[in-house]
Amino acid sequence: MANEYKQDLLDTVLRVKDQVHQTPILTSTLINTMVGAQLYFKCENFQKMGAFKMRGAVNAISQLSAKQKEVGVVTHSSGNFAQAIALAARNLGIKAYIVMPSNAPKVKMEAVKGYGATIILSEPTNASRQLEADRIVEEKGATFIHPSNNYNVILGQGTAAYELLKKHNDLHSIITPVGGGGLIAGTSIAANYFGNNCKTIGAEPATMDDAKRSLVAGKIQYNTSGTTVADGLRTHLGAINFPIIQKFVEDIFLVEEQQIIDAMKIIWQYLKIVVEPSSAVPLAAILANPAYFRNKKVGVIISGGNVDLANLPF
Amino acid sequence: MANEYKQDLLDTVLRVKDQVHQTPILTSTLINTMVGAQLYFKCENFQKMGAFKMRGAVNAISQLSAKQKEVGVVTHSSGNFAQAIALAARNLGIKAYIVMPSNAPKVKMEAVKGYGATIILSEPTNASRQLEADRIVEEKGATFIHPSNNYNVILGQGTAAYELLKKHNDLHSIITPVGGGGLIAGTSIAANYFGNNCKTIGAEPATMDDAKRSLVAGKIQYNTSGTTVADGLRTHLGAINFPIIQKFVEDIFLVEEQQIIDAMKIIWQYLKIVVEPSSAVPLAAILANPAYFRNKKVGVIISGGNVDLANLPF
Repeated sequence: MANEYKQDLLDTVLRVKDQVHQTPILTSTLINTMVGAQLYFKCENFQKMGAFKMRGAVNAISQLSAKQKEVGVVTHSSGNFAQAIALAARNLGIKAYIVMPSNAPKVKMEAVKGYGATIILSEPTNASRQLEADRIVEEKGATFIHPSNNYNVILGQGTAAYELLKKHNDLHSIITPVGGGGLIAGTSIAANYFGNNCKTIGAEPATMDDAKRSLVAGKIQYNTSGTTVADGLRTHLGAINFPIIQKFVEDIFLVEEQQIIDAMKIIWQYLKIVVEPSSAVPLAAILANPAYFRNKKVGVIISGGNVDLANLPF
Repeated sequence: MANEYKQDLLDTVLRVKDQVHQTPILTSTLINTMVGAQLYFKCENFQKMGAFKMRGAVNAISQLSAKQKEVGVVTHSSGNFAQAIALAARNLGIKAYIVMPSNAPKVKMEAVKGYGATIILSEPTNASRQLEADRIVEEKGATFIHPSNNYNVILGQGTAAYELLKKHNDLHSIITPVGGGGLIAGTSIAANYFGNNCKTIGAEPATMDDAKRSLVAGKIQYNTSGTTVADGLRTHLGAINFPIIQKFVEDIFLVEEQQIIDAMKIIWQYLKIVVEPSSAVPLAAILANPAYFRNKKVGVIISGGNVDLANLPF
């Protein structure tokens, strides 16, 4: 399997490169002084549709058969993956059905519609979302693409870390937020095969620490309560990404809500970029664990920049 | 004089290039669709200390004599030029005195102090600012550097447009905000000598339209009342930059306050960058004059990103 991961990621890099942005890597002298380390921010907020999710969506959709492409795709997401599938499908001339919870932010629904996708509303529960998606698969014959628990999606997300390592091959570690597990799983494949002893670290809100608990228990754990300002991370690992995470991820660090908000403000203030709260979770983890990162070169995946400007947490 | 401008700008480019960032140029398909033109945003919000002012400060300070450098420099500014002189002076090991009005935002005073400069408080009037600066010149022998009405500052500011034109030599026009006139004067020198029939356009808040009125009257005009959300632009042209502006600037477009705020939000939302209100004035002018810019390639100078995140206008 090992060499398959490596070859699969290389194939993915070639497959998606003309359909996604090779996003810039930013640094800040002030932030480096603050954390006592050298941070390289891979800015997926500048990715098409504003988040790394575009990479996985493009990779998954472009590998469908001609017949599958003719019928279309379906996913469920209230966030960035909805927009990613909608845009990737439109760019490839494919029909997209997006199941969104009825309480999804209006601005996100508008964005999905703007990309020409058909929205199907569901109750705001995981069960209802999946039920509606299953119904579209049944009725329309559309292919379901899961936002994070899909091998092609995972590989697509890994291309961000691959690009980062091509520019900086001496990183001690790469740190990503952990939500559904697609980004960290893809990143860990990239770090393992294309880094130089580069560790993959996860950063997760302490209020929704399912991934950390899953790693410790050796079995996928769920959140039964709690919430987080990092709204992109309110989900759990899956059967496809969890084994990859177990194999390649060094550790997952937990951070408090206020630490996320403070880190988000630091990114806006000093990097001068608009990022969503989830993107600030890795910097929060670095700030909370100074000894671990001291004097190290650390890659930080900035996951996205789709945020409601009228409703900022600071 | 013509060839002097050209040679002086080339000399300036070489003089400052290792002390300033060659900032990225961003584009947005969504914004281009919205305005019906191709916009190239030269992102000086990513400049050192967060604004184009660093370019002029570096150019002015690095041309001081050894004796002048030994004594130090003084300027008056409540905004970006204060930070620019403070940082440029520190980087070159020179003492900086910054006269700031007593009502300047605390965060800006902290930033100036953080760069190691000495702050002198004045009453919040132009007269009092100049008086305090004159006193420092008198008492300390420091060299006064005006934020915008100084030829070396003007040339420094022009290096942003020069870099933009080196990457995109077919721009129809470059548009900048107009405050004290340093940026637009420097930009117009760059556009005239290094563009291919590239026009320089100014964008100014309608509530503080002194530069537009100055161009029309052929004589520097002042604002006696009014204010603007674009706080960097609450100042007037000077005797050194005005003749350059008269010679090389095509026109100045006026925009309403709400247009500035709307344009600022568009930049944050679609370019995913943090910019100050002044930086949004050019995009507001493009949006307000669609026929003028239709299907044109237009350079837009994003002046800076130093904004109070706790006090956004939208």
